[in-house]
Parts: sequence; C-alpha cells; structure tokens
Amino acid sequence: MNSEEVLFVMTLPRTLTRDLPQRVGDEVRLQGWIHRRRRLASVTFCVLRDRSGLGQVVVKDPAELRQLDELGEETVIDVTGTAVANPQAPGGVEIVEPTLRPLTDPAEPSPVELWRPSLTATLPTLLDNAPTTWRHPRRQAVWQLAAATLHGFRSALLDLDFTEVQTPKVVGTATESGANVFGVDWFGTPAYLAQSPQFYKQTLVGVFERVFEVGPVFRAEPHDTVRHLAEYVSLDAEFGFIDDHRDVLKVLREVVAGMVDAVATRAAPAVEQLELTLPVVPETIPLLHFRDALKMLRADPDEVDLSPEHERALGRWGLEEHGSDFVAVEGYPMAKRPFYTHPEPGDPRWSNSFDLLFRGLELTTGGQRLHRYADYLSALAAKGESPEAYTGYLDAFAHGMPPHGGFAIGLERWTARLVGADNVRETTLFPRDLHRLAP
Amino acid sequence: MNSEEVLFVMTLPRTLTRDLPQRVGDEVRLQGWIHRRRRLASVTFCVLRDRSGLGQVVVKDPAELRQLDELGEETVIDVTGTAVANPQAPGGVEIVEPTLRPLTDPAEPSPVELWRPSLTATLPTLLDNAPTTWRHPRRQAVWQLAAATLHGFRSALLDLDFTEVQTPKVVGTATESGANVFGVDWFGTPAYLAQSPQFYKQTLVGVFERVFEVGPVFRAEPHDTVRHLAEYVSLDAEFGFIDDHRDVLKVLREVVAGMVDAVATRAAPAVEQLELTLPVVPETIPLLHFRDALKMLRADPDEVDLSPEHERALGRWGLEEHGSDFVAVEGYPMAKRPFYTHPEPGDPRWSNSFDLLFRGLELTTGGQRLHRYADYLSALAAKGESPEAYTGYLDAFAHGMPPHGGFAIGLERWTARLVGADNVRETTLFPRDLHRLAP
Repeated sequence: MNSEEVLFVMTLPRTLTRDLPQRVGDEVRLQGWIHRRRRLASVTFCVLRDRSGLGQVVVKDPAELRQLDELGEETVIDVTGTAVANPQAPGGVEIVEPTLRPLTDPAEPSPVELWRPSLTATLPTLLDNAPTTWRHPRRQAVWQLAAATLHGFRSALLDLDFTEVQTPKVVGTATESGANVFGVDWFGTPAYLAQSPQFYKQTLVGVFERVFEVGPVFRAEPHDTVRHLAEYVSLDAEFGFIDDHRDVLKVLREVVAGMVDAVATRAAPAVEQLELTLPVVPETIPLLHFRDALKMLRADPDEVDLSPEHERALGRWGLEEHGSDFVAVEGYPMAKRPFYTHPEPGDPRWSNSFDLLFRGLELTTGGQRLHRYADYLSALAAKGESPEAYTGYLDAFAHGMPPHGGFAIGLERWTARLVGADNVRETTLFPRDLHRLAP
Repeated sequence: MNSEEVLFVMTLPRTLTRDLPQRVGDEVRLQGWIHRRRRLASVTFCVLRDRSGLGQVVVKDPAELRQLDELGEETVIDVTGTAVANPQAPGGVEIVEPTLRPLTDPAEPSPVELWRPSLTATLPTLLDNAPTTWRHPRRQAVWQLAAATLHGFRSALLDLDFTEVQTPKVVGTATESGANVFGVDWFGTPAYLAQSPQFYKQTLVGVFERVFEVGPVFRAEPHDTVRHLAEYVSLDAEFGFIDDHRDVLKVLREVVAGMVDAVATRAAPAVEQLELTLPVVPETIPLLHFRDALKMLRADPDEVDLSPEHERALGRWGLEEHGSDFVAVEGYPMAKRPFYTHPEPGDPRWSNSFDLLFRGLELTTGGQRLHRYADYLSALAAKGESPEAYTGYLDAFAHGMPPHGGFAIGLERWTARLVGADNVRETTLFPRDLHRLAP
C-alpha cells in the first residue's frame, strides 16, 4: 500500500458483520473477537464475532497466518480486507486479503470452547465463568430476550399512561413478611433489603395513579431450588380506579402481549438462533376460579394452594381447550395471600387476586388490594401487628386512596419459561443464591 | 333519573380532566382526589385532581353540598355531571349538576395544604410526609421530569444499539473503593451493597460490546451534604471499540440530548407547570483540558481537583463563550481517578477521562478504561492490592477485551439541576441518607 492507501485504511469506519451483505466488493474494516480459527492446508478461516453476529475472514498470507497463530481465540482484533460474495460463507460474504491488527494482548484460552454450536458445560462451570460463557452466541441470545422483555414491559405501560418510579431498596423495617429478609448495617442502625416495592408502589398510586418499576428485589430464601434466587429483577405495576382484580388481569394481558411483541420484533435474531416458538397471548386469558380449578383437578376442596402438578395440568387445559399458553386462576384463598389483599366481596374465604400461569408454571401473582385505612388497621390487628411499623405506608391510606391493584413479574422466571430452561440461574447474568455471591 | 338513565351513568367510562375540553355538552364521569373546596354563598367549587391535572365541579344541590362538607380534601370520589364551557374555569370547562360518590372513607386532613399553588413546608416536613407531599402538582411535575429522563436515556442508547443489562446489587467483596460500603448479612456470610455496576458493565462489554443499566447504587457517605445520598439511581453506560475518551463524550452528548428531548416531549405539562427553561445541548460540547482549565481559572497548576467555585466559573465560561449549559473537562489527574482509568498516552500524569459540568456543577464522570489484563495487574499491584479479590472482573480482561469506556449519571442530581433545586433530596421519591430510612 502507498501512504494514501494506508491513510484510507486507517480512517475506514467499522462495519458490523451483519451488514457485510450490503458491502460486497468494498474494502471494509471489521472489529471483534476471534471466535474460531479453522486451519486447512493452504488457508485458515478466521471467524470473527462482534455484537451483531459472526463473519468469516480468509487468511492466506504467511505473515498474517503467523500472527493469527499467536493470537488465541477471544483475542480482540481489527481486520481490514475486501468483502466478497461466497455462498459457502456464513451470511454469504467473506473477507479476503485481510490485514489483521490485535487490539489487546493475546487472550488466555477460554474455560469453555465458545466456538462450539452449543455449550455443554455443567451449570456450575457456566456460572463460575459467567464473564466468558455469556459470550457464547446462544447465551447472548438468551439475554437479548430478557432485554427486549424489559423494553416491552415499559412500552406497554407507558402506552397506558403509567409513570415509571424508582423506590428505595434499603428499608427501615422488615414488614412485608418478617421472614427471609437480609439485614444491612446502615451507619450502625439495623436496616433491611426490600423484598419488593409493594408498599411504595401502592403509596405512589396515591400520587400518580398508575406506576411501574423495574428493579432488584431480595429474598433470603434458605432453600436451593431451580425456581428461586436470592436477588432477582422484579417488573412491578400498580394502578388505581379499578373495579376489581379483573381490571388488573386486563392490564397484565396487555403487558404480557407487549413483552412477547417486543421479543418478536426487537430480538428476532435471538428468537431465530434459539429456534423458539413464541407464546400466543389470547385477547382474553382463560380464567378459572380457584374453587372450580380444584374441582376440575379432582383435588381436595379444602386445598389452599395449587401443587406444581396442578399447575401443569391447568397449563395443558389452557392449551387444549383454549389454545392459550396462559391460564389465570382467580379467587385464591385469603389464608395464603398477604394482609393487603382485597377479599372477594360476599365470601371473604376467597380473595380478589389471581395467579397467571405461563406454560403450566406460576409466572405472576396479582390482584386487588385493600384501599380503606380502616381495613388496613383491621388486617394488621388480625395479624397481631402494630400499625406503628407501617406508618409511612398507612399514611397513604389515611389520606385517600382509590380502589387499586397490581402485579409483579419475575424477569428471570419469564425468560426461563420462554427458552424452556429448567433453572432460573441460566437466565440471570450473575445469579445470587444461598451459595453464590460471585462473579 | 329513571332507571335507564341510572344504568347509563353507572356504566359511563371515566374521563380524565385533561380531556374535558373535548367533552363540552356531554354527560361525563370524573374520578380523583378532592383537591380543594371553595365555599361561596350559593355554590361550592370542588376542584378534583386526577393524574392528568385539575377539573372544576360546581356543587349547588343541598344534599350534595352536605355530602361534600363531610368529605375532606384528599378523599377519593367519583363525579358524574355535565361538562359545560366556562372561560373562568381551569381549562375552560367545568362540571355542573354533579352527583358525587365517595370511593373511600373521608380522608384525614393532609399534613400540608396541597391545594396551595406552592408548598412552603420545610424540607424535613416534605420528606417525612412524602406519601402525601408528592401529591402536590408541582412535586408530581418534578418526578415527571425524572421519569421522562429515564425514557430518554434508554431510548438514546437503544438507538445506538446498546443492550440493557441488570447486574447484582449484592457483591462478595468490597473492591471498588474499600471505604463507604454497606455490609449485608448474606446467610451468615459478610457481603456488601454494590457501590456501582462498574465492574459488571465493563465485564459485559466483553459480551454485548455496548451496555447500559439503570439501577440503585449505595454509598455509605458519612457526610450530610445537599449533593449526596446513600442510595441513588445511577444511569450507567459502557461500550467497546473506542479510540479514546472523546468517543465516550460523543455518546454522552447524544444521551444528554436524548434526555432533554424526552423531557421536552414527554413531560411538556411538567415543564410548563414548573416554568422551566430546558438546557441547550450543543452539537459539540465545549471541551477543556484540566491543565488549561486551571490556567484559565488562575488556579494552582498542581491542583488535582476543581473546587465548586471553579466549576461554577467554568459553567459561566461555557454559557458566555459557547452558549452552552454543558462544559466538559478532560485529562483529570490520574491521582484522583480510580485504578481502572486509562492514562493519557504520552503523559500518565493525566487521564483519558472527563467530568461533564451541567450549569456549573459536576453531573457525570466518564472516560476510557484500561483494557489489557497486564495493565490491570500492574494497577492493582500499584495500589497494593491482590488480584484474587478481583477474579471475576479480571477474567474478562484475561479473555480479550476491546478498548472501551463509559459514564454514569446520577438521576437525582440531574433532575435537581433541571429544576434548580439546591438539595438532591427534593428530587428523590423516598431519599436515604445518614439519618433517613423512612418513609
């Protein structure tokens, strides 16, 4: 190259691998990670990975080949060369006559072989090496579903005139359940990590009528199960001026439809990569009363909860009878619901609340809450609790609150159901549980 | 009314007060809080507040007047009546011949008079009574700016192909600064609240190239200042394949412009209510080297930080010389920057980092980070720290990381600058500091 050509190549803007099909015949610059090197007799194929996918670079020059030999997989490089059509190459385009330039020192060998089509590592290996294992294209795709979901959740609620809020994650009293809270040393004063934004989102219905929040919640779950994390991302919504919990279910239906829609449109490459069938969200989600669900399942009519087998059976019923991946069960026994739950008018054994099952597993709990100050005082008295610990929360009700309700969706659990993962740890970037605080 | 009319009124859908101008002549239903009652000789004006604003209801019927007397301000009611044009009424429309129906018990008197145009309460009163004081229209408007900002931040970054991430807020080691961390009892193991998502967002540049996160961060600040909170909302971005910190500043410029744009378009009523002049974000933010800033300020050339007075003077300089509410200062002394900061090539006294000043106050710190594994080992050794405590973080660099950088914006501080609030507690829904854990 003469000096003019050198200058041209130095200032050539970067092309993403996904845009190569539009650049056939051009001199291009790629930047990314060495995903794989395939050495043949006279040529080495270097597959480059960037945020948009993979691109093939054909290396023949002996000096470039020697350099490539010294740079292990995962080394970050800059490649300039000519984009040419080749039906055999991924995406139908490859880079020939490349000039390679490392952007870092050669990478240490990866703890797992990221170039294999699927990661076969055990879950502990996957989690211990999260900084590198998330680089695998299929792992990246899993998180892209989660990221698109966050966008869909917010968009659906903004369209419905909700206001986003941000509430504190450290609280002065361990109120909502008492058990399973993490203690924090707050400048020498005992404090706690918030188990949910429940009290704050209700309080803020008194301000903005309709609110949502995306944020971490903390549960000191002493059990090691595939469905529980000690810290997870909760998608919370709460809103006022409802008739009852069915208005909440209607908004939840819009939100879930918005989430699926965002995944389909914003994470289309991820859906394709993982070969997913996205769920169908019917206009009206099939709805059963808890009492009738027990009857249909031939379960003990005095049961106060549904077993995992019951949930799976209801999932099958929804799909077979209504063509729906979602089933809602309303009226859960008050005995199993938190103190702020609104009872069913006329029969306080049941509640104005529901669970939403997604493919036979509980995804969400939602419902109508109490809204009268006097009802809160009675509910706390019935629990044997003093209202003093709830002062800030009760203030909202003393000063006028509309009938309201809401729901919360666990992000990791939602993504796990979408991809059919057995363990929510597979859909969490850096999970936290009884045994895991790192990476 | 005959029974057909009763049925009609019962099923009448709700109208928001902001939509009343389109409903003149119609029978409408309003729902909201009694914001104010103004009793005149022959009539009482009841101002109703809903999430969209205020609406005037004209009450003359003796039975309705008696009822209204019993329902204090802040009681939530349902009103049906006829919308009629009246140029004297707020919005030019009022409701006549209303039927009032309370949706809760009468509210207790509010701790502050929410119907006054401005809240004159002291800051402690404002904060102690946050569940009700946020109901004041001007307070609501302040948070609407914050909510719109969150939308603008994310939109700008999604448009630039960033991926949203969610990282853990409880970590196993107190690494980033060592001091000012809150301890957590994690199932009997000592753990800490994350001071920032810094390590995780850098790690994830190795996965997604471009990431952002909105979430809480925790600083055990032992000082009580108007600019610091112990928990705040951090808007973080980090991305790879940069030349240096000026690429970071370019993205930050786009993000700030997106935030201002979202405030202007999505929170227009709030901007109007607070009579704000939104900042101008120039195409190129005026940029000074730290060394030259000291010179211009006639400060000691060995200074390693800018004083508040210096920042204010630079703010005036930006406005007078460049018509800009923003000024960037690059090259801050390495001595004052964290260990992962990339030094200025050629003169390691200075760093490839910057502060962004907004109206004469530091809003953001950003810059280029180290990206070579060996540089991290040296930087930690220079600090006298062992790399073992940083294992998960260092993994990302050992396995190939591109040149990268990023920034973080404190949501509360941004909103405080927008509205000209002296204290960040005024722009936080439920602030947490040395002395405050409730409400």
